[in-house]
Amino acid sequence: MLGARCLLQALRSCSSAPCARPRAPAALSVRDALRARGASGERVKVQGWIRSARSQKEVLFLHVNDGSSLESLQVVADSSFDSRELAFGSSVEAQGQLVKSPSRGQNVELKAEKIEVIGNCDAKAFPIKYKERHPLEYLRQYPHLRCRTNALASILRVRSEATAAVHSFFKQLGQHLHHPLALDSGFVHIHTPVITSNDCEGAGELFQVEPSSKTKVPKENFFNVPAFLTVSGQLHLEVMSGAFTRVFTIGPTFRAENSQSRRHLAEFYMVEAEISFVESLQDLMQVMEGLFKSTTMMVLSNCPKDVELCHKFIAPGHKDRLEHMLKNNFLTISYTEAVEILKQASENFTFTPEWGVDLQTEHEKYLVKHCGNIPVFVINYPLALKPFYMRDNEDGPHHTVAAVDLLVPGVGELIGGSLREERYHFLEQRLARSGLTEAYQWYLDLRRFGSVPHGGFGMGFERYLQCILGVDNIKDVIPFPRFTHSCLL
Amino acid sequence: MLGARCLLQALRSCSSAPCARPRAPAALSVRDALRARGASGERVKVQGWIRSARSQKEVLFLHVNDGSSLESLQVVADSSFDSRELAFGSSVEAQGQLVKSPSRGQNVELKAEKIEVIGNCDAKAFPIKYKERHPLEYLRQYPHLRCRTNALASILRVRSEATAAVHSFFKQLGQHLHHPLALDSGFVHIHTPVITSNDCEGAGELFQVEPSSKTKVPKENFFNVPAFLTVSGQLHLEVMSGAFTRVFTIGPTFRAENSQSRRHLAEFYMVEAEISFVESLQDLMQVMEGLFKSTTMMVLSNCPKDVELCHKFIAPGHKDRLEHMLKNNFLTISYTEAVEILKQASENFTFTPEWGVDLQTEHEKYLVKHCGNIPVFVINYPLALKPFYMRDNEDGPHHTVAAVDLLVPGVGELIGGSLREERYHFLEQRLARSGLTEAYQWYLDLRRFGSVPHGGFGMGFERYLQCILGVDNIKDVIPFPRFTHSCLL
Repeated sequence: MLGARCLLQALRSCSSAPCARPRAPAALSVRDALRARGASGERVKVQGWIRSARSQKEVLFLHVNDGSSLESLQVVADSSFDSRELAFGSSVEAQGQLVKSPSRGQNVELKAEKIEVIGNCDAKAFPIKYKERHPLEYLRQYPHLRCRTNALASILRVRSEATAAVHSFFKQLGQHLHHPLALDSGFVHIHTPVITSNDCEGAGELFQVEPSSKTKVPKENFFNVPAFLTVSGQLHLEVMSGAFTRVFTIGPTFRAENSQSRRHLAEFYMVEAEISFVESLQDLMQVMEGLFKSTTMMVLSNCPKDVELCHKFIAPGHKDRLEHMLKNNFLTISYTEAVEILKQASENFTFTPEWGVDLQTEHEKYLVKHCGNIPVFVINYPLALKPFYMRDNEDGPHHTVAAVDLLVPGVGELIGGSLREERYHFLEQRLARSGLTEAYQWYLDLRRFGSVPHGGFGMGFERYLQCILGVDNIKDVIPFPRFTHSCLL
Repeated sequence: MLGARCLLQALRSCSSAPCARPRAPAALSVRDALRARGASGERVKVQGWIRSARSQKEVLFLHVNDGSSLESLQVVADSSFDSRELAFGSSVEAQGQLVKSPSRGQNVELKAEKIEVIGNCDAKAFPIKYKERHPLEYLRQYPHLRCRTNALASILRVRSEATAAVHSFFKQLGQHLHHPLALDSGFVHIHTPVITSNDCEGAGELFQVEPSSKTKVPKENFFNVPAFLTVSGQLHLEVMSGAFTRVFTIGPTFRAENSQSRRHLAEFYMVEAEISFVESLQDLMQVMEGLFKSTTMMVLSNCPKDVELCHKFIAPGHKDRLEHMLKNNFLTISYTEAVEILKQASENFTFTPEWGVDLQTEHEKYLVKHCGNIPVFVINYPLALKPFYMRDNEDGPHHTVAAVDLLVPGVGELIGGSLREERYHFLEQRLARSGLTEAYQWYLDLRRFGSVPHGGFGMGFERYLQCILGVDNIKDVIPFPRFTHSCLL
């Protein structure tokens, strides 16, 4: 990071506004306290919530957690403290000495001189019970409290780290995919719009947006055109890929699908990238594989304990499955090969595999298993199955487009991408055939003025988290899930 | 960054899938080519769009830009190349030697051996004209093409850097605000929901969300409750601040306001943070000032040329104004003091300043000028003016809450924040008085179970960009602006 040290110095000198009153030393996070292995005897203040309280002879042991890590800090107090108030779920502030811990499983503990209860917890009414491991379905009823459990807190910390890792990949780590002289991967981050007037692409799964009846603006024509929630930032990223050769976004996307599946949400996040001057699907697949592996390795390195909790208690055995994905090169088969494999399978599919028909979830599952549970790229899909913007392969007799889906174990389709049709006349004909020429004049414009071969992809961020953590239901990897019949808080 | 080097090594070994065909060496970005000062004689490939083409005697000079930097790379070709095709706006690929440039203002240039036109540009129809500096209002008509101008490309690169800097501040740079032993600032990033069933807070400026008429789901009750686009992630961040002591988000927020102002959008981004165990507004103000200064200094350090372009051509004189903001400690006055200052002003205000009435834009402007164009925190607003969640100061005779607004030159209100009412009975009474008890039972719950003093703030991200760049109209600092009567693309 350029000049981080001198930034910090500058900040140190500016951070105390003239009005600031003299304050007690700032509190130390539990995570930092646990890492301060050499700092024995240091006097510190720690704040958090009591995860367990245990009286033993004349000593009281508390475990205080503040969300900075899965681990809690053990606070040791003598019996002069009132143990009734120091109960599970209460918030406390503890001051004392950070000392080497004689207990197993921790390096340091806090020898408390002062413990103050900040907020009591009404234990009877609290839906989270001491020492119980609540099923994830039970916790879903309490979206405002479930983050106070180890499981959800770990998942959310992983989500936060994965978000940072995605940014980091596109900014720096992806550099190895480019020229040896490249100093960074040079992706520009773009906030693609949430509200859009593009209504043709998603065909019937859109949410519409209008001012609520309480507003003072005329309802029908706030934007002068019908407005919808975006189903993908792709077309807007394509606008940008006519000016920046590499762009990406991570943002919310929406589908008004009537689905109760464990893999679908009405509001979910997509990591999308668009790259100009790509020459082949392989160019894209390299970035896709790099994104998956780099992000995952950063998450594993930055919050190993949180991942371990999931692999231990939520999805036993998933650690090995993930390692298997990371250490192998992803495979590639064509759609045509995939259909052949499915036709030769001894499995009884509900949907008969046939060239020209979409792959079903059962097919995707079989293909991944067939590939030894290594993620597999399926490329070159039938033209008739795919939207107008995918690049025509001009092949035959089976006419295909340069599309790619990445299938992963447990989840199925994780990433979808394609080369885009950059040739004006090809695109013009495809749009005309769908009656979309007028609506997509602006999109044609991108090919009239300095068109470039380009391509991109979108990765479902929640599915990615499901895939690395082994979490079965997508509702458990997003802070506030929205789906048919549910929009809590 | 933890283990970045070994991540890269691991990635290098995994990045070539077994299917990958042998490829030509990857292209170098213009930015990296320009930085490769020592690498004279290196053979490289550069791809981008022609920003200028000039024939001189027997030599053709092209400037090729690929969006990786404001600067273009000069490509020098002999007259055997067809200069008619090598025209403004076309996309090209140039191969040759990177050599020291004899020209002024650049260190290196590309001695072309091969130049290929990838996509022609229909110059007559292209709304962006060679060598013209188009006004920003003109460019707004072409949201799909305006990113191809220097001005918009620079603003969007700054936006991308500022996004990264915000993440960086909350992850690392903010650490100086905490304990000396702190290793990072420990903020957890939370994706707060876009669709929400909270409808009470924004009072009449909400967008409502429903499945479009084309969907197969029953329109009225997709979510079983009326659903809206969020006006702020605050309440959802407060949920999280009962489990993590520091959380932040950067995401889209919405207002269905009928406004044509240069400071308002229907869809805009907010940087929001919530901090548990804060003791005073000063705690928050320190983070707010740190966020502003640290983010700005990172942007200045990472894309100085892009900022310079704005300060030179869009807002002359703004460089000094920004430096003035950065080098001074932000000021603090109370709302009551602010009203006194306004009352004593010789200025003729349209709205007479009076205790208990909201500050108007004209008042905010005057206050900032009165403070010598240094950003100023206004604190402790009348209770009656502010929402139920702001913490009661229990003062008198003028009853106030612990709210804070940061006013900055040119923009007015940039950040708004407050301590939140963490005391169950205070909050209960405020909710009851507004008839909101039932709707906010979940919010009361947060105070029943281990409540902690906490506070937070939200910074308008577009206003922040306006403030540092001096861009007058908010529509020019967001890729695709949405406002009354306009939702292009």
